[in-house]
Amino acid sequence: MTPTEKRIYLIRHGIAADRADYERDADRPLTEEGFRKTRQIARRLEQLGLHFDRLLTSPLTRARQTAEILQEQGLSDTLEEYPHLKPAGNFQQWLHWYRDWQPSAETHLALVGHEPDLGHWAEQLVFGDIGDRLAIKKAGIVGLILPRTGSPVGKSVLFWLTPPKLLL
Amino acid sequence: MTPTEKRIYLIRHGIAADRADYERDADRPLTEEGFRKTRQIARRLEQLGLHFDRLLTSPLTRARQTAEILQEQGLSDTLEEYPHLKPAGNFQQWLHWYRDWQPSAETHLALVGHEPDLGHWAEQLVFGDIGDRLAIKKAGIVGLILPRTGSPVGKSVLFWLTPPKLLL
Repeated sequence: MTPTEKRIYLIRHGIAADRADYERDADRPLTEEGFRKTRQIARRLEQLGLHFDRLLTSPLTRARQTAEILQEQGLSDTLEEYPHLKPAGNFQQWLHWYRDWQPSAETHLALVGHEPDLGHWAEQLVFGDIGDRLAIKKAGIVGLILPRTGSPVGKSVLFWLTPPKLLL
Repeated sequence: MTPTEKRIYLIRHGIAADRADYERDADRPLTEEGFRKTRQIARRLEQLGLHFDRLLTSPLTRARQTAEILQEQGLSDTLEEYPHLKPAGNFQQWLHWYRDWQPSAETHLALVGHEPDLGHWAEQLVFGDIGDRLAIKKAGIVGLILPRTGSPVGKSVLFWLTPPKLLL
């Protein structure tokens, strides 16, 4: 937990409205409970001293709203939509993005997205393959330490995974 | 997170005295800070509503003291020393113990022990092999959901992993 590590926080969107109530899945917003709990999580993360150098979000409404709450709480100065954080987004494309970005040694990056994608991305970073072995609840968080150089696939270390109910 | 799942909590002992100050590694106690932080963790776990049906600990002093703090906080009615939770303990023997125990569907088991063993046990339960891919701090916790039947090796799901500083 030295301050010079590259860390990634994978954050699942909060509780969203039912699919039946929206024509387009992408339009489903957070529910009232989703807003409330996600705000609680954001406040808690801020209290824990977290701050992100970049905050990328899936463009879908429920993820975008989750990321906006994180930004409003001061966890990140910036907020960027990133298309491959959509459901069934392309992990390899994100790896290219990450490689091209060339973050400095001390970097905290947050990604807001969806299940099962976030869990699969985390599994690929940590173990190099996918096994549905991580349980990520809505507004749940996974924290990874990425290697300083080279591909992070199968080379990252899991230092945090928490459901909201065990964080609040 | 239904209440009828088998859950295992792997808990690393708190901060212990320096090796240089004790002839036998097994005798090293928690430091004052170790006692204080472990008590904070125990209180927090109790606040989060956790309760263990069985609490097994490595017989080494620093682990035993950690387990006693958990018991004193009311997290478990019982406390048992279990030899294979010692450093370099035998995971296969524990699997036999677990199989012979035949816990009911709704069971919360806590194991207090050491690194790197706890991380290796967790990795074997979740991924079926060892890769040093989990970072477990002192007084850190790993939570796994085990399958209802059959061997848990490579079949368990990670639902929680937290260092003390992200829990308190």
